[in-house]
Amino acid sequence: MSNLTSLQWIRTEYQPRLPSILNAYLSLVPKLHPQLQSRELEASLKALFPLTQSAPIITFEKKPVQDHPKLKIGVVLSGGQAPGGHTVIAALFDAAKQFHPDSELIGFKNGPSGIVKNAFIRLDNEKIAPFRNQGGFDLLGSGRTKIETPEQFEAAYQTVKSHDLDGLVIIGGDDSNTNAAFLAEYFAKKESKTIVCGVPKTIDGDLKNDFIELSFGFDTASKVYSEIIGNLLIDAKSSAKYYFFIKIMGRSASHLALECALQTHPNLTLISEEIAKKNQNLHEVIEEIALLICQRAEEGKNYGGILIPEGIIEFIPDFKMLVNELNLILKSATSGGEEFAALAEQLKLSYLKSKLTANSFDCLLQFPAEVQKQLLLDRDPHGNVQVSKIETERLFISLVEKRLSDWRKEGKYKGAFSPQPFFCGYEGRSALPTNFDCNYCYSLGILSALIIRWKLNGYMACINNLAESASEWEILTVPLCQMIHQENREGKWKAVIQKSLVNLNDPPFLSFDQEREEWRLKDHYCTPGPIQFSGNEQIADKPPLSLLYMNEMKQLQK
Amino acid sequence: MSNLTSLQWIRTEYQPRLPSILNAYLSLVPKLHPQLQSRELEASLKALFPLTQSAPIITFEKKPVQDHPKLKIGVVLSGGQAPGGHTVIAALFDAAKQFHPDSELIGFKNGPSGIVKNAFIRLDNEKIAPFRNQGGFDLLGSGRTKIETPEQFEAAYQTVKSHDLDGLVIIGGDDSNTNAAFLAEYFAKKESKTIVCGVPKTIDGDLKNDFIELSFGFDTASKVYSEIIGNLLIDAKSSAKYYFFIKIMGRSASHLALECALQTHPNLTLISEEIAKKNQNLHEVIEEIALLICQRAEEGKNYGGILIPEGIIEFIPDFKMLVNELNLILKSATSGGEEFAALAEQLKLSYLKSKLTANSFDCLLQFPAEVQKQLLLDRDPHGNVQVSKIETERLFISLVEKRLSDWRKEGKYKGAFSPQPFFCGYEGRSALPTNFDCNYCYSLGILSALIIRWKLNGYMACINNLAESASEWEILTVPLCQMIHQENREGKWKAVIQKSLVNLNDPPFLSFDQEREEWRLKDHYCTPGPIQFSGNEQIADKPPLSLLYMNEMKQLQK
Repeated sequence: MSNLTSLQWIRTEYQPRLPSILNAYLSLVPKLHPQLQSRELEASLKALFPLTQSAPIITFEKKPVQDHPKLKIGVVLSGGQAPGGHTVIAALFDAAKQFHPDSELIGFKNGPSGIVKNAFIRLDNEKIAPFRNQGGFDLLGSGRTKIETPEQFEAAYQTVKSHDLDGLVIIGGDDSNTNAAFLAEYFAKKESKTIVCGVPKTIDGDLKNDFIELSFGFDTASKVYSEIIGNLLIDAKSSAKYYFFIKIMGRSASHLALECALQTHPNLTLISEEIAKKNQNLHEVIEEIALLICQRAEEGKNYGGILIPEGIIEFIPDFKMLVNELNLILKSATSGGEEFAALAEQLKLSYLKSKLTANSFDCLLQFPAEVQKQLLLDRDPHGNVQVSKIETERLFISLVEKRLSDWRKEGKYKGAFSPQPFFCGYEGRSALPTNFDCNYCYSLGILSALIIRWKLNGYMACINNLAESASEWEILTVPLCQMIHQENREGKWKAVIQKSLVNLNDPPFLSFDQEREEWRLKDHYCTPGPIQFSGNEQIADKPPLSLLYMNEMKQLQK
Repeated sequence: MSNLTSLQWIRTEYQPRLPSILNAYLSLVPKLHPQLQSRELEASLKALFPLTQSAPIITFEKKPVQDHPKLKIGVVLSGGQAPGGHTVIAALFDAAKQFHPDSELIGFKNGPSGIVKNAFIRLDNEKIAPFRNQGGFDLLGSGRTKIETPEQFEAAYQTVKSHDLDGLVIIGGDDSNTNAAFLAEYFAKKESKTIVCGVPKTIDGDLKNDFIELSFGFDTASKVYSEIIGNLLIDAKSSAKYYFFIKIMGRSASHLALECALQTHPNLTLISEEIAKKNQNLHEVIEEIALLICQRAEEGKNYGGILIPEGIIEFIPDFKMLVNELNLILKSATSGGEEFAALAEQLKLSYLKSKLTANSFDCLLQFPAEVQKQLLLDRDPHGNVQVSKIETERLFISLVEKRLSDWRKEGKYKGAFSPQPFFCGYEGRSALPTNFDCNYCYSLGILSALIIRWKLNGYMACINNLAESASEWEILTVPLCQMIHQENREGKWKAVIQKSLVNLNDPPFLSFDQEREEWRLKDHYCTPGPIQFSGNEQIADKPPLSLLYMNEMKQLQK
C-alpha cells in the first residue's frame, strides 16, 4: 500500500465525528426503544423466522458496565462497492479493541462466498491503517454470491463455528441484508453463539424504510456524479452546441438521479417511478425529450443536459411488456429459442409479428437495428433478454434523433442537434468517501460492535436524524426480519427486504417537481464542484439534499 | 447568476497568489530581456510579418511611474473551454481599473466571430463578480471561427477602431494565437492604436515551447480526469471483473493521457507519439493490449485500466495511410464520391480492394462493420473521413475482444473479459479551476494588462518557473511571431504556431517509461481524489507532475 497519494494519507488520519451517545459507547447497555414497537409479522413470515421473529427494537442507554468480553468478529463486504465500507471495518476493529484488547477481527474475502468457502484474512492495525476512510472494497474484495442453498447455509455455519465468532457483520444492500436475516435465523436454530448484524450499504439509496433514512455511499456517489454533471452543464452552456444525455447509475430506483437533479438543475430529468405512475410509453418519453429540445431550439438554445436513471427502461410499461413477451416467445420457441435463432434474419421480424401483441411489436419497431438485434439475440443463461446491457443513453439519443428529423421534415424543428452520451457509474462507487459518509460509516461500525457485544442476533445497525450534525444523530438497532415483506417476483412470493423506490409524494420529488419547469428553458445550472474534505463545514460536511428535504418535512410534522 | 453553489461563492472570493514581481505591477516598465534574444525569422515569415517581425523579447523592471492612462480593452475567449478563462478576464478588469479608474473592458461574444461581427458586452464588476474563478466560458461564450479572409481582418479592424480599443486580448490555443499574430500585423499595417496580446489556453497542453511551459487549464482538466481514473481503477480492483478502456480528451498530443498516467498508474497507457515513432500498426497496438489482458489473466486478474489518448488513431501509421487513401479515392470517385456512394453495399468493398493499397485494405478489414461503414460514409463538408467521430475506446474494445476470442480458441487465453468504455472529456473542460490555474490565470491577466499599458503589440503573455510556488514565478512577454514556423499541412506550407507533441526524451515520458513495467501486472493504482481548494497546500496548490519532472531536469542542468 505504498501507493497512497497525499490526499489519501490525509484521509487515513481523518477523525470521524460521532453521535454524542456513541462517545461513551463502552458504557452503553441495550434497552427497549421507548416508542417503537416491533410489528407483528404475518404468518408466512413467522414461519420463516420462528426464532428471531419477536425480537424487539432496541436502543441504548448509559449505565456503568464493569468490563467487556473479548470479541471475535467476522466481517464481509457484499455486492457493489459503496464509499465508506472500509470505514465501517476500521470502526469495528477500533471498537472491538476498545471493548477488549484481545478482540479479533477477520475479514471474509470476495463477498459472501468467502464465508461459504472460509476464505478470510486476519485484520490488524497495520492492514487496516492505509484503508481508513478510503474508497473501494479492495481490502477484502466483494462479490454477489447469495447464501441460498441448505449446503451454503451449513457451510457458513461451519465457518463461523470454526472461528468461534461472536458476531458476523454483513455490509450490504437489500439482498445481502435479506440474506443476513435468514442467516441469523439459521444460526439461532443451530444454537450458534455467532450473532448476525447487518449494515445498510448501497449507493443506489434504495435500502430505506421506517428505520433507515439512508444507506451509506449514496452521499459520496451522488456528489461525484453531481460534480461531473455540473461541469457538463456549464460546458454545454459555454460551447452552446452539445446535448448531454447523462445516464445515472442505480439498478432500479431513481434516487441518485433525483438527488443529482436537485444538486445541478439539468433541463430535464426523467424519474422512472413517475413514468411508471403516469403509464408513459416509450413513444411518449422520447416525445417529451424531443419537445424540450425543440422548444429550446426556438429560443436559440441548441444545447442542454438530460438525466436518465439507469433503471428507466424497465419502468416504461410498453417496453416492460415487450421484454416479458420476448422472454416467453424466445424461451418457448423449441428448446430455448433455437428455432427462432435458426430463422433467416429477414424472417425474424415477421415471425415476431405473428407472436407479439401489436403494442409490443410497435415498440420493437421503434428501436434501431442494433438494439433490435441485441434484444433478440443477447440472452442471459436463463434465456432472458439482457435489459441491463442496453445503453439507454445511446438508445434514447438515437430515438430522439429520429423524432427530431421527422419534425424537421414537417418544419416543426429547425435546430441543430449534437448529442453526447455520458454514463455516471463506476467512478462513483469507489470514490474517497465524503466526511458525511466517513462519519456515518464509523458510527455504523461502532454500533455494529455494540450489537455484537450485547449479542443482539439478526439486527440492523441504524443511525438516524442524519440531516442534523453528527453529534445529533440517533442510534437504533432493528430486527432484520422487521424489514422483510413478501414480494411477488416473477409469479413467486419471496420474503425480501423491499427496494425503496422514489416516493412521488415525498419532499425530494415534490421540490424537484416544483422547480423543474423553470429549469427546462432557462439555464439554472448548478455546479457543486469537487467534494471538499476541509474548509467551510457547510460545504465539507453537508448531507444530501434529499435528506435535508425529508428532514424539513419531519420538522414540520412535529 | 443566483445559481452559484456555496463552493462557487467561496471560489469567487479566492485571492489568487501572484509572482512577487507582479505585486507592484503599477510600477513596472518594460525592458529588454537580459538573456533572450529574438530569433531572426526566415525570409518567408519576414514577408508575412514585415512590421512585427523584429520585436524584442521583453520583461519588466520596477521603476517609479508617474501615472497611467485610461485603458480600453477588448477580450475574447477562443476555441474549446479551459478552466481559468474567467479568471484571466477578472484580472484584466482589476488591473485595467488599477491603472486608471475610468478604464473599460468589453468582452466579445462567442469567440472571434464576436470581433468580426462586433458582438460584445460591457464588463463591469457586477457582471464579472460571480464568474471569478469559475469554470466554463459562459460569461462570453466561445467559438472556433478563425479570422482568415481579408474581409474578416478588415471587419475586425473596424470593430476595434469603433471601440477605440487600446488592446485586444485573445485567450486561445495554437490556432487562435497564430491568428492573433496576424491580427497584430494587420492592425500595425493599419496604424491602429489597438495592440493585440495572446494568452496561452488549452487543456490539451500542446501550446508549449521555449517560452511557454504550460497552457492554462491543463492542470484542472488533468486533475478532474485523474480523480475519475483513480476511482475507476480502485473500482476495477474491488470488483475484480471489469477492464476500463478510458479515452482521454486531447485533439492530437498525448500530454493529458501521460499526466493522468503519472497520477494514477493504470496498467497500460498508450502514447500516440510513441506509437508513431515505433511505427506500430493497428494490429500491433491491439496485440499489445490483448497481451496485457492475457498476462494478467494468467495471474488471475481479469480486471484493469487502460488509457487511450483521444488523438491516437491518427498516429497509427497504417490507419493514417488508410484515411489518406480513402480521402483521395472517395473524393475522386466522380464528383465527390457519388459514384462510390451509388455502388451497392456488397460491391463497395471490392471496389475499394481495387483502389486501396494492400496494407490499407487489410487495415480496413480489421474494423467491425459499423466502423467500416462510418469510415466510408460519414464525411465532412470537404469530403474527408471524420476520424474524430470514431469512438476509439469502443473500437479498441471490439478489436481486442476479437483477438482474445481467437487466442481463446488457440488455448492461449483463458480469462474472462468484461470491458467498459469511458471517455474523460467534456467534464474536464469547464470544471472549477484549481488554485494553480487560478493563480496562473490571474497572473496572466495582469501581465496582459501590462502588455497593453505599454503598447507591446503582437505579444504573448508568458509566465514561467511554474513548478515553484507562485511567488517565484517569472514573467516574460514574447512576440507571437517568434513562435511561428512554417508547417506543411496537406501539401501546403502554412505559418503557424506548432502544436507541441509529447517529447519521448523529456522527463515526463522517461519517468513513465521507467515505471510502467511495474504497473502492468501489479496493481499500483493511485487515487488522487477530488480537487481540494483549501487545507494542506502541498495538495491544494500542487502543479501537474509533468511540470515538476521538467523542472527537476532544468534544476539538474543548471
